[in-house]
Amino acid sequence: MSQNETGISEVTVEVPMNIALVKYWGKRDEKLILPLNDSISLTVDKLTAETTIRMVEGVGKHTVKINGEEVELSSNKRYQTVFDESLRLQRKRKEYSNGNENRLVHFEVISKTNFPVAAGLASSAAGFAAIALAIQQLLNLNDTQANRLARIGSGSACRSMSGGLVHWKKGEKDDGSDCVAVKTADDNWTDLYCVILVFNDGRKKVGSSEGMRRTRETSTLLKHRIEKVVPERIDSIKKAYSTRNFEDLARVIMADSNQFHAVCLDSVPPIRYLNESSWQLIETVEKFNQPEIRAAYTFDAGPNACVIVQKKDVSKFITAVIRDIQINTDDLKALPEEFTKSIEDRKDERTENKFACSQLVVSSMGNGPKICTHPRT
Amino acid sequence: MSQNETGISEVTVEVPMNIALVKYWGKRDEKLILPLNDSISLTVDKLTAETTIRMVEGVGKHTVKINGEEVELSSNKRYQTVFDESLRLQRKRKEYSNGNENRLVHFEVISKTNFPVAAGLASSAAGFAAIALAIQQLLNLNDTQANRLARIGSGSACRSMSGGLVHWKKGEKDDGSDCVAVKTADDNWTDLYCVILVFNDGRKKVGSSEGMRRTRETSTLLKHRIEKVVPERIDSIKKAYSTRNFEDLARVIMADSNQFHAVCLDSVPPIRYLNESSWQLIETVEKFNQPEIRAAYTFDAGPNACVIVQKKDVSKFITAVIRDIQINTDDLKALPEEFTKSIEDRKDERTENKFACSQLVVSSMGNGPKICTHPRT
Repeated sequence: MSQNETGISEVTVEVPMNIALVKYWGKRDEKLILPLNDSISLTVDKLTAETTIRMVEGVGKHTVKINGEEVELSSNKRYQTVFDESLRLQRKRKEYSNGNENRLVHFEVISKTNFPVAAGLASSAAGFAAIALAIQQLLNLNDTQANRLARIGSGSACRSMSGGLVHWKKGEKDDGSDCVAVKTADDNWTDLYCVILVFNDGRKKVGSSEGMRRTRETSTLLKHRIEKVVPERIDSIKKAYSTRNFEDLARVIMADSNQFHAVCLDSVPPIRYLNESSWQLIETVEKFNQPEIRAAYTFDAGPNACVIVQKKDVSKFITAVIRDIQINTDDLKALPEEFTKSIEDRKDERTENKFACSQLVVSSMGNGPKICTHPRT
Repeated sequence: MSQNETGISEVTVEVPMNIALVKYWGKRDEKLILPLNDSISLTVDKLTAETTIRMVEGVGKHTVKINGEEVELSSNKRYQTVFDESLRLQRKRKEYSNGNENRLVHFEVISKTNFPVAAGLASSAAGFAAIALAIQQLLNLNDTQANRLARIGSGSACRSMSGGLVHWKKGEKDDGSDCVAVKTADDNWTDLYCVILVFNDGRKKVGSSEGMRRTRETSTLLKHRIEKVVPERIDSIKKAYSTRNFEDLARVIMADSNQFHAVCLDSVPPIRYLNESSWQLIETVEKFNQPEIRAAYTFDAGPNACVIVQKKDVSKFITAVIRDIQINTDDLKALPEEFTKSIEDRKDERTENKFACSQLVVSSMGNGPKICTHPRT
């Protein structure tokens, strides 16, 4: 953090999106964004939001610029909520420490994502995690406070606040004070990689806030999922992760992705996020997993796939994908040589390519956010 | 029934397929075909199997001919099972009545369906219900015995044995003696019609026996559906049917179709029966149901839709369908004038027709099977 003579503090952070291995779907409190069930995730290190926040003393408006475009804050209330809460926490801390510096401040946020915001890749989660982490630095907040800031911006943002396997606990309390995302004790499993496949489609998507509400209000299966299925799966994921048991991990990841989409389908009216390309990818993974499970697909609230594999299997998996799905040559060229050198593209083996992937990215997982010690100003 | 001097008895029946309003999915006994949960259905009167059975005395092979083609019985064991059970019941009855006529007999079955067998429209259910009803006549069996014959041929066949709202009770006993399909007390709701839309697709389908087994063994949601959701829905359907409350009936029908597909998706590997055309139809129905529910879609183990509407709304619904989905002109021409006279096909209102329906049929519901008193021979 730097502070110059004019009372401007500034910090820059780089925060990756995260992908849930056991999905978050449904809120127990809409205002505080408290989830109905625990979830567990890993960061996708390559897909990041790089965010600089300046805290400026004196009268002025908060501003947020994402990828060069000014965000209209009056129609994006969540930014205002996060800034208000930040300043409330600051005042509280100052009163507590008997300080008197009740000066006015405002925030200027500049954020850049390295993936399409519209691709449905939880960009807002990375963005709000970045804002929360940066404000934590600026205001010297504790982790629980920072977690809360991220969460009220975008629920799953709190899972991007650290590396390793992150467990977002739903908590029991009404005020959300025990609802936190924590890194599990394990070292990061550095061998886990993911292949992200973006499948655009023209359908109008049911937003995840609206979708969660609909499922909570209408699905007769959700309650059973929340009470019985999810707690067991959280334990299974932790155990498989700490014992480095890829097959067990993969089985739970795929089952939970499918169950999340199942409760969406069980809603009234039914919600669908998977499209024909998603289903082709599921089939490709099923084939690739014969006779041994080496890949696990997972889909969030959209058609895009995230396929988790071990580093040693990245090339083999891409070889399997390009047989069934059309991939941009440029995306393949952009991959590190260690992954591309053993990809085999045997055109005679290709199935009729009906589905096209508009973007393919390979990333390590679980490295978490970076606080940039040298601010860019 | 007729019997000539050479010892040949013959009977002809016409049996409609049925569509479940609360779905059967999962067996508690694979051999006796006992279901894990109750289901409830109506017949689709227009789609029938017309079946003639001759019972011939003396040594000879059972034969089954469907739509002019001889069925290879060695690879279709269920026919043999039904014939064996029929003859066992006959012997039992004769022994009981102290009869001595333990003569050899065999069956000759000739069946004709008026809808494509491959369309996934539960043709085997109608076919086995026809065989069971005809053998009931020939051997003078009671309803429970006939029910059992139909069921061991094809589980849901037992729901085609009568008209009205038919409730197939799963029963509790291991021998299946309390597992029967019964007509509920109500008069048939003659105002209910259905529009069947056949959407072919090239995907290899997971057969329903295999699909049920997979869901039973792997879905963590199925148990909750069976124990908690289905019993309530059976009650709701009965109540809505007896009070002629279309909206309530429709709500349960759609929710249960979606939940059946949800537990399929919750299976490992996931099972999918709905395709893009099915989802277009769901959207069409959702639009049509604004501001008032006037149609209910339901899908069995395939992409084809059955949309239940009241007679007064048939034309309006077809008007809505042809806006979104391509329908054969011949199918429309084949409809009775009462339905076609007020169809409006406003080409300027049509959405871009991406999905084509290969067959459209409108049918009354719940009239049940007919025993033809004059055999055709």
